[in-house]
Amino acid sequence: MSVASVSAPAAGTPHVTALSDWIAACQGRFEQFVQTCLASEEREPRRLHAAMRYAVLNGGKRVRPLLVYAAGEFSSAPDAALDAIAAAVELVHAYSLVHDDMPCMDDDVLRRGKPTVHVAFDEATAMLTGDALQAEAFGILARAPVAPEICVALIRELAQASGTAGMCGGQAIDLAAVGRAMSAAELETMHRMKTGALLRASVMMGITAGGATARERAALERYAEAIGLAFQIVDDLLDTVATSAELGKTAGKDLRQSKPTYVSVLGAEAARRWAERLRTEAHEALSGLGPQVQAATARLKQLADLIVQRRS
Amino acid sequence: MSVASVSAPAAGTPHVTALSDWIAACQGRFEQFVQTCLASEEREPRRLHAAMRYAVLNGGKRVRPLLVYAAGEFSSAPDAALDAIAAAVELVHAYSLVHDDMPCMDDDVLRRGKPTVHVAFDEATAMLTGDALQAEAFGILARAPVAPEICVALIRELAQASGTAGMCGGQAIDLAAVGRAMSAAELETMHRMKTGALLRASVMMGITAGGATARERAALERYAEAIGLAFQIVDDLLDTVATSAELGKTAGKDLRQSKPTYVSVLGAEAARRWAERLRTEAHEALSGLGPQVQAATARLKQLADLIVQRRS
Repeated sequence: MSVASVSAPAAGTPHVTALSDWIAACQGRFEQFVQTCLASEEREPRRLHAAMRYAVLNGGKRVRPLLVYAAGEFSSAPDAALDAIAAAVELVHAYSLVHDDMPCMDDDVLRRGKPTVHVAFDEATAMLTGDALQAEAFGILARAPVAPEICVALIRELAQASGTAGMCGGQAIDLAAVGRAMSAAELETMHRMKTGALLRASVMMGITAGGATARERAALERYAEAIGLAFQIVDDLLDTVATSAELGKTAGKDLRQSKPTYVSVLGAEAARRWAERLRTEAHEALSGLGPQVQAATARLKQLADLIVQRRS
Repeated sequence: MSVASVSAPAAGTPHVTALSDWIAACQGRFEQFVQTCLASEEREPRRLHAAMRYAVLNGGKRVRPLLVYAAGEFSSAPDAALDAIAAAVELVHAYSLVHDDMPCMDDDVLRRGKPTVHVAFDEATAMLTGDALQAEAFGILARAPVAPEICVALIRELAQASGTAGMCGGQAIDLAAVGRAMSAAELETMHRMKTGALLRASVMMGITAGGATARERAALERYAEAIGLAFQIVDDLLDTVATSAELGKTAGKDLRQSKPTYVSVLGAEAARRWAERLRTEAHEALSGLGPQVQAATARLKQLADLIVQRRS
C-alpha cells in the first residue's frame, strides 16, 4: 500500500523512525477515510450522528487499522479495500467501547481523556450510537471495492470476531467473572475472545483482501493469535501501573471492580514475561517466510513490539 | 417456495383460510430454521446464548419473515436463501426490541407476554444480547447459500435499513421527540425510518434473492413503503385501544411517555383512515403485474390486509 512507500524500510533492516513515519502515514490516511464513513452531524438525526463521530474521531491509537494496513502490505491488497476493512474493524471496536462504558456495564466516565459517550450525550444515545456503528461497520464492508466473494469472506470474518464466539462472547464471560476466581486458562479463553478476536480479525482480513499462500496464512494466524493475547496482557499490566492521565481512561478499575486480570491471577512479573514470550512467538511465526514478504513481515514484527512495549 | 404449495390459492382468488395455512407453514419453517442459527444455551457463554434464544424464540408474529417469504415467492428465490434472510431481519428486529426495552430507552418490563430480557436476565446481558444478535444477523446473511454478489447486495440492504438512515436513525428521532409537538410529516419520516425501513427491507431482500424486472421491483418498493408505514399507524392505534394482555406488551405507554403518535397527532379516526388508504396503495402498487406473479401478488395483498386489520 502507498503509505508504506513513505518510509519503507530496506528489507530486513527496519528502523524505529521508519515505523513512526509509517504509523503517522497510516493514521493520517485512516482518519481521512473514516471521516467519510460517518454522516455529518449537520444531517438528521444530528445528535446520533454527532455521538457517532465523537465515539470514533477521538484520537484513538488505531491499533486495529495499523494491523489491517500491515497485513495488507503482506498480501498486496489494494489500498481502498484496506481502508474499508480498517474502518469496519475500528467502528466495531468503537461501538464496543461505547457500550462497555455504559452504567450497566463498566460504568466509566473517561475514555481517551474525554467524557464517555453516555456522559457527553446520554445513555439512550450511547446505546443507539453503538448499535448504529455496528450496522455501519458491516455496511462499509459491503460497499468495499473488492470482488464479491472476498467481500462476503470479510463480512463473515468480522461477524465471527464480533459475535458470541468472539468479542460479545468474551464480554459475557467477563461479566460472569466479576468477583470470582478464574484460572489462567479461563482468563486466556476470555481474552482471546474479548480482545483477541477482533485484533486477530484485523490481521486476517488484511490478508483476505489480498493474496497469501496457505502456509503464509497459517503463519499470520499464529502471529495474530499471539499479539491478540499479548495486547490484553499488556492492557492489564498498564491498568495497574499507569495513571488515568497516561491511559486516557480510568486506571486501576479492574482491581476496584474485582475483575480477574493477568496481573491478579499471575502476578505482574509473570504477566510481563508472558507478554514477552508472546512477542517472541509472534516474531517466530513470521520467520522463514519468503524474501518477497520480508519488508511486510518486518513491519508486522515492529507492530508486535509496539503492542508489547507500549506505555499507554 | 415450498411452503406455498401447502395452500397456494388459485390465482386471483385468495382465501383467508389459505392465508392462515400459509402463515402456519411459513412460521413452522422459520422457527425450525432460526433455532439452528442460535447457539445452544449449553454452550459457553451460556447466559448470553440463553438470553439470545429467549429474545428470539418467543412466539413473535414473524411479520418480517412472512414478508420475506411472500416476496421470495414473487421473485422465485430459493427457499434456503429466504430462510437466511428471514432469520437475519428477525434477529435485527429482536435485537432492537431488547435494546428498546432497556431502562435507558423505553424501560419496559413486558414483551410478548413475558418479562423483557433485562428483567429476565440483567441489563448488561441484555445489552450484549442485542449486540450479539446484530452480529449474528450479518453473519447469517454472509453464510446464505446465494451467489456472492447477491449476498453482498443483501448485506448492504440490511445495513442500510438498520443504521442511521433506517431503524437506529428513526429511534434517535423518536428519542428527541419525547414531550414535544411533531407534525404529521415529521412523524411519517420518523416511522418510515424506525419501523418502515426494516419491513421494507424484508420485502426488497426477498426480491433481491430471486429475480424481478425493474418495473416489478419498483412496484414492490411502493408496496413495501406503504405497508411499512401502515404497520406503525396500526401499532399506534392498537396501543390506545388494546389491553396489555392482548398486545403481549405494555399498552398505552406512548401516551404515558408523551410520545407523539399518529393517534395523538391525527386523532384515531384519521389515523384509521390513513392506514386504510395505505392498504389500498399497497394493493394498487401490485396491480397490473403479469399473470405469472398473480399468486404471489395475491399473497402480498393478503399480508397488507393482515397488517392493517390485525388486532394485536
